[in-house]
Amino acid sequence: MPCRRWRDLSSLDLASVDKDRTLVVLPIGSTEQHGPHLPVGTDTLIVEAVVEGTTQQLGDVECLFLPTLWVSKSNEHSAFAGTITFARDTLCRVVEDIAESVARAGFRRLVFLNAHGGNAGLLDVLGRDLRQSTGLLLFDLELWSFYTAQTLSEGALPVLDIHAGYFETSVMLACYPSLVGERFGGGLGSDRERGKIAASFDGFCYLTPDGKSASVPWLTGDYTDDGVMGDPGQARAEAGRREYDRLVGIVCAVLRECAAFEYRPSAS
Amino acid sequence: MPCRRWRDLSSLDLASVDKDRTLVVLPIGSTEQHGPHLPVGTDTLIVEAVVEGTTQQLGDVECLFLPTLWVSKSNEHSAFAGTITFARDTLCRVVEDIAESVARAGFRRLVFLNAHGGNAGLLDVLGRDLRQSTGLLLFDLELWSFYTAQTLSEGALPVLDIHAGYFETSVMLACYPSLVGERFGGGLGSDRERGKIAASFDGFCYLTPDGKSASVPWLTGDYTDDGVMGDPGQARAEAGRREYDRLVGIVCAVLRECAAFEYRPSAS
Amino acid sequence: MPCRRWRDLSSLDLASVDKDRTLVVLPIGSTEQHGPHLPVGTDTLIVEAVVEGTTQQLGDVECLFLPTLWVSKSNEHSAFAGTITFARDTLCRVVEDIAESVARAGFRRLVFLNAHGGNAGLLDVLGRDLRQSTGLLLFDLELWSFYTAQTLSEGALPVLDIHAGYFETSVMLACYPSLVGERFGGGLGSDRERGKIAASFDGFCYLTPDGKSASVPWLTGDYTDDGVMGDPGQARAEAGRREYDRLVGIVCAVLRECAAFEYRPSAS
Amino acid sequence: MPCRRWRDLSSLDLASVDKDRTLVVLPIGSTEQHGPHLPVGTDTLIVEAVVEGTTQQLGDVECLFLPTLWVSKSNEHSAFAGTITFARDTLCRVVEDIAESVARAGFRRLVFLNAHGGNAGLLDVLGRDLRQSTGLLLFDLELWSFYTAQTLSEGALPVLDIHAGYFETSVMLACYPSLVGERFGGGLGSDRERGKIAASFDGFCYLTPDGKSASVPWLTGDYTDDGVMGDPGQARAEAGRREYDRLVGIVCAVLRECAAFEYRPSAS
Amino acid sequence: MPCRRWRDLSSLDLASVDKDRTLVVLPIGSTEQHGPHLPVGTDTLIVEAVVEGTTQQLGDVECLFLPTLWVSKSNEHSAFAGTITFARDTLCRVVEDIAESVARAGFRRLVFLNAHGGNAGLLDVLGRDLRQSTGLLLFDLELWSFYTAQTLSEGALPVLDIHAGYFETSVMLACYPSLVGERFGGGLGSDRERGKIAASFDGFCYLTPDGKSASVPWLTGDYTDDGVMGDPGQARAEAGRREYDRLVGIVCAVLRECAAFEYRPSAS
Amino acid sequence: MPCRRWRDLSSLDLASVDKDRTLVVLPIGSTEQHGPHLPVGTDTLIVEAVVEGTTQQLGDVECLFLPTLWVSKSNEHSAFAGTITFARDTLCRVVEDIAESVARAGFRRLVFLNAHGGNAGLLDVLGRDLRQSTGLLLFDLELWSFYTAQTLSEGALPVLDIHAGYFETSVMLACYPSLVGERFGGGLGSDRERGKIAASFDGFCYLTPDGKSASVPWLTGDYTDDGVMGDPGQARAEAGRREYDRLVGIVCAVLRECAAFEYRPSAS
Repeated sequence: MPCRRWRDLSSLDLASVDKDRTLVVLPIGSTEQHGPHLPVGTDTLIVEAVVEGTTQQLGDVECLFLPTLWVSKSNEHSAFAGTITFARDTLCRVVEDIAESVARAGFRRLVFLNAHGGNAGLLDVLGRDLRQSTGLLLFDLELWSFYTAQTLSEGALPVLDIHAGYFETSVMLACYPSLVGERFGGGLGSDRERGKIAASFDGFCYLTPDGKSASVPWLTGDYTDDGVMGDPGQARAEAGRREYDRLVGIVCAVLRECAAFEYRPSAS
Repeated sequence: MPCRRWRDLSSLDLASVDKDRTLVVLPIGSTEQHGPHLPVGTDTLIVEAVVEGTTQQLGDVECLFLPTLWVSKSNEHSAFAGTITFARDTLCRVVEDIAESVARAGFRRLVFLNAHGGNAGLLDVLGRDLRQSTGLLLFDLELWSFYTAQTLSEGALPVLDIHAGYFETSVMLACYPSLVGERFGGGLGSDRERGKIAASFDGFCYLTPDGKSASVPWLTGDYTDDGVMGDPGQARAEAGRREYDRLVGIVCAVLRECAAFEYRPSAS
Repeated sequence: MPCRRWRDLSSLDLASVDKDRTLVVLPIGSTEQHGPHLPVGTDTLIVEAVVEGTTQQLGDVECLFLPTLWVSKSNEHSAFAGTITFARDTLCRVVEDIAESVARAGFRRLVFLNAHGGNAGLLDVLGRDLRQSTGLLLFDLELWSFYTAQTLSEGALPVLDIHAGYFETSVMLACYPSLVGERFGGGLGSDRERGKIAASFDGFCYLTPDGKSASVPWLTGDYTDDGVMGDPGQARAEAGRREYDRLVGIVCAVLRECAAFEYRPSAS
Repeated sequence: MPCRRWRDLSSLDLASVDKDRTLVVLPIGSTEQHGPHLPVGTDTLIVEAVVEGTTQQLGDVECLFLPTLWVSKSNEHSAFAGTITFARDTLCRVVEDIAESVARAGFRRLVFLNAHGGNAGLLDVLGRDLRQSTGLLLFDLELWSFYTAQTLSEGALPVLDIHAGYFETSVMLACYPSLVGERFGGGLGSDRERGKIAASFDGFCYLTPDGKSASVPWLTGDYTDDGVMGDPGQARAEAGRREYDRLVGIVCAVLRECAAFEYRPSAS
Repeated sequence: MPCRRWRDLSSLDLASVDKDRTLVVLPIGSTEQHGPHLPVGTDTLIVEAVVEGTTQQLGDVECLFLPTLWVSKSNEHSAFAGTITFARDTLCRVVEDIAESVARAGFRRLVFLNAHGGNAGLLDVLGRDLRQSTGLLLFDLELWSFYTAQTLSEGALPVLDIHAGYFETSVMLACYPSLVGERFGGGLGSDRERGKIAASFDGFCYLTPDGKSASVPWLTGDYTDDGVMGDPGQARAEAGRREYDRLVGIVCAVLRECAAFEYRPSAS
Repeated sequence: MPCRRWRDLSSLDLASVDKDRTLVVLPIGSTEQHGPHLPVGTDTLIVEAVVEGTTQQLGDVECLFLPTLWVSKSNEHSAFAGTITFARDTLCRVVEDIAESVARAGFRRLVFLNAHGGNAGLLDVLGRDLRQSTGLLLFDLELWSFYTAQTLSEGALPVLDIHAGYFETSVMLACYPSLVGERFGGGLGSDRERGKIAASFDGFCYLTPDGKSASVPWLTGDYTDDGVMGDPGQARAEAGRREYDRLVGIVCAVLRECAAFEYRPSAS
């Protein structure tokens, strides 16, 4: 099977892989508060479930999965117990050292598979810097950015369901039901916090909490007292299973494109 | 007039400003190649023109404009003469030192007004880190992200007009006509380079050069030999004037929101 | 059960733990060549097997296991494909950021459970620096230092069995038989490399490759061409099982002491 | 005209310049308190006025002026509102990144034109380090060091007129009269602060505030409550105009020498 | 005489030395509290005395002694007046810069002669990193590790005599009697502090204060109020002289081995 | 006697010193080529001789001398064997760590006694930064700046006698005659190198090699092939003794002023 774990191979195995085509994938999770009902490893657990599913469905794309980074940059949550965060520069060095080790072994294609939105800005910068310093072809796949779109059309859910809310709770119910606390009912985040966020942005046209053009950088405590930004009360395992399948499908499709991509391909 | 230049005020003037409401705005340009026909200071020149227009239209919002950062992070263009770039960490320290100086003076609201897309990822991270380390309310206004939308509906322009193309050349023709070289005709970038980029991404669904969900970090040389990514040949001064006016209008609107924004506003 | 995984608990769970007594354990593995027959994740895999065994036998000591660091400092192996290494300063920052996050959550006792000898010097320094900067009680448990003692009495094994040799291959045969390559016979490392190392140190009284008083810092290539320092040919699964059980027993005993330790205990 | 602005040229223009002879000049100003009567941008404004004058008088020396650094190292003034300062290492990186970009473009001669005395020590070090790391011919022109000499012979002015005093106020009155506050009369700095400084150094032979051989590093607050070190009360626009003309003459003369200088010139 | 001081030679002398065989030795002392009776320079003074003795006895080994590093890493003692300590990274840079200068001059063999136990972990790491970055043959001679062994068999001395106790006080009495305070009697450290340390580790099997396998990182204040860890009351000059002679003999023997060592020596 | 060596005192001694008045002096030498005839430790040896003389003549000023820094920043000489240099940032950290340790012990007055001109710029910056970060009263005594003045009036000596020339060779002949090589005659540096430097600066009015207002940063190889900048051929021991006595006198005078200095002294 072409999907394999870097960790389980010997140095000799890795030396004999086709370096030009093989994708090396670095899954990036986090350890950060996810409300009172989800484990702090939620991002790590979701990305690992997606990697597992991808491994089984990817087909003939040569792909090596590195182990998951279980700490990344979560300082917006650092006021909540259980959050473990790297400083900005620590995460940069961690990713650079790993990428340089991958390049030193002769590989040419490295994919970030990132499940934590708080890392996106830095990975964007690191991708460009590593493209320049190592010559690697980098690919930046932001898994979390696929979380919301279809979810929001399920009835009249809140606009902002970005952390420990409907989507993540549903997927966790589907993939790790034993790790979801009982108390994910309507009392969490939902009404009260949604209202607060709504009040902050009420009447604003340009400023939005997750806007790309005109945004307001935030810490979790700016929005919520219980760490939930969304509505976990409506989460359901069935919806989570559907979303999980969709995510695996997207990751497989993107990885196939990553394996085929070339800059300035020669005309055929 | 409530719009003033930080540079022109004395320490005593600055000490007596209303710190709670006054916006401090840091305009961020760049010094980087903009094809053979536009000056390397194009981003700096555009943001300074926008600041000038904003100063005249902003009305009664108290606002202090810092001088413009004329170097930022442009390493994707470093293979072209005239590009001056900060390393990642240099830009971080520059912005942090300025923000800490602003906070030390007692101000509470700092706005990044960024004209160079290559800075966006880092400013996203810096905004969050500075929100935490200084307690400032940060606002991140990415001016360049407003460049393309309306432009692309002008006839059948290329999808990718992101650098030294139709938009930037038009605005420069409107605001600094003497600095635009004669040779911005159809021979530049347009057909040839557009074709090359199209070839790279031909048939791909997820991977895009400017995608947020699944992107391929690039250096300018990956795409183009003359540094142009877009079609300057169609640029016109009248279009540039319209776009310029639109940009000033957007900046004024966003700054008004920045002055009014509060986290968790108390109910009235 | 008092042994739990940090990753699987919610922020609320972690906030309610007894911070004064509970041990937080950071398992430290590596990703580095282990000869042509063992996976590059050998150190990580062994420490995770030991954590799993410890979890079941530790009894009533309150203990939280962080996920395993799967990259640490392996630059002595960087000439071999598959090795992923942090620079010195990267590992320092990684461990410091994690320790500071643990201290910020209110915990008081942090244990390094380190399976890679190449980290020992730095962890010694970090322990002291973190004791000073965070006030945490640190404990430094160097798992690898228990590998050799009993092994060496098994017949006339070589003095130097420190990497990918008899001990590690035996434990991997016991715990992960499917990941051990067929080719761990007498042709590896053993005779040829043992001879080379012996030749280097022949007739020396003080200088030794692993000496603490007078040592010669080495890179793997100084000693061996196939990355093996030891004699994997004699490895047996039964011996590996015995050693594994012994390691688990030691770790349980040490953790009990860590939970009970106090500086300057008051007389009872 | 051979004097041009780097910012206004295209990458193509810059690529075609004669790299061996052309001077690249980096003007260095500051943003720091200058008493209650001068703008915080005084150093920046003065150096920009001098650059403007130089551009018109330099003649046939090929010279490219970079935009002005408007923040440099002003931590001695950081207790006063409006001061924006880089930390030591930030300024080093800023200047190094700019110099490396200039060298990468193929230029060979870089001139620091520094208007803020607080940068002198660091520029001295950076010049030597960049000479070594980039191979550039560096020139360090400390504009401020020409401020005092002739001034002090105007009547019986104070020995120490180094900041926001007679000289700087006069030049600002000549070049930017609208930015000088009304209140630069005898009540500022002059008597009271001069007396204090005199008292500190009364009876000392070697220790002086600006001594090179035996100096006492100071923060502004060690000397003065209003940020003035000198006597702005005697400032006059006519004197400022004379001094400005003198400065422009000096800068032109130095730049001509910089363009002609070679190490170990071959005998003619 | 083949033993010489680097400091006393000219650049020309150093350029003409046999680089392949000559040992360059960096003696490493410290400046840190050594109880109320020994000078803060004790480690430096001892290593300098040992260097002096070695110089006279080493015979025909070509050896160049650098001056002694008189500050190293002593942060465990920083709560006591007189301790001067480098931060972790400062010591790394100091040793790296010196080693790179030695390598740049063409030398091939560098020996750390370290008298302060607190540096051992970092020197272990630095030796490996410098072996890789400079290609030098490094040798790490930890002088302090030879202090205790024979001493402890002298009667029933305490197990822990690691700082300012019997051994160091004896050697100082032998080599620098005028610098040893009168008050090194039984009232210091000995009974009281020994008892405290004993109480901390009473009943523990694995955890020890200086253990390599399972240790507890400490600050001096964790153990002792007067900075003594040992029993200076029993110190005698005669014992110090014996120990000093033993140390010189060991250093001479190790240096002879360092001069002869080669990796993978060719068969003779 | 009030002049004492920090190294020789115990922690208890240092804790009981009058912290308000006592001067702590850090002598700063270097290890750098000094031509083919002077030892690389020349700067260190001279400053130590001056410290020794000062100790005997200083009288009742309370003064503690730290050991001498024997490496500082000498990268301009790094192309010559025997030069050992710290990078810019290493020297900053070394001086900062020492100053912070001195401040932590409660002292209030720290004097840099610097014998190597290449450190002057950095010490100027460090003095100001440490004044701010530690609150210490810093004094920066640049010993080398007193070398040339009187020397140059001795007949018609060269204008540039700054390194390994008449002055330093004379002082070394007076203080360390056995360390001065025979070959310091007229063939060194003098005619040939003086001529080369003269040629470089011939006809220049502002640019000078050691100018403060308009200088050209240099590496030793820019000027000289044998490392001498000056005329050692005329050096005499008697002149060296006179200069040495003058230097000791100056240092004593400056230290007396340092002990008496206060900012804003209250009127008596």
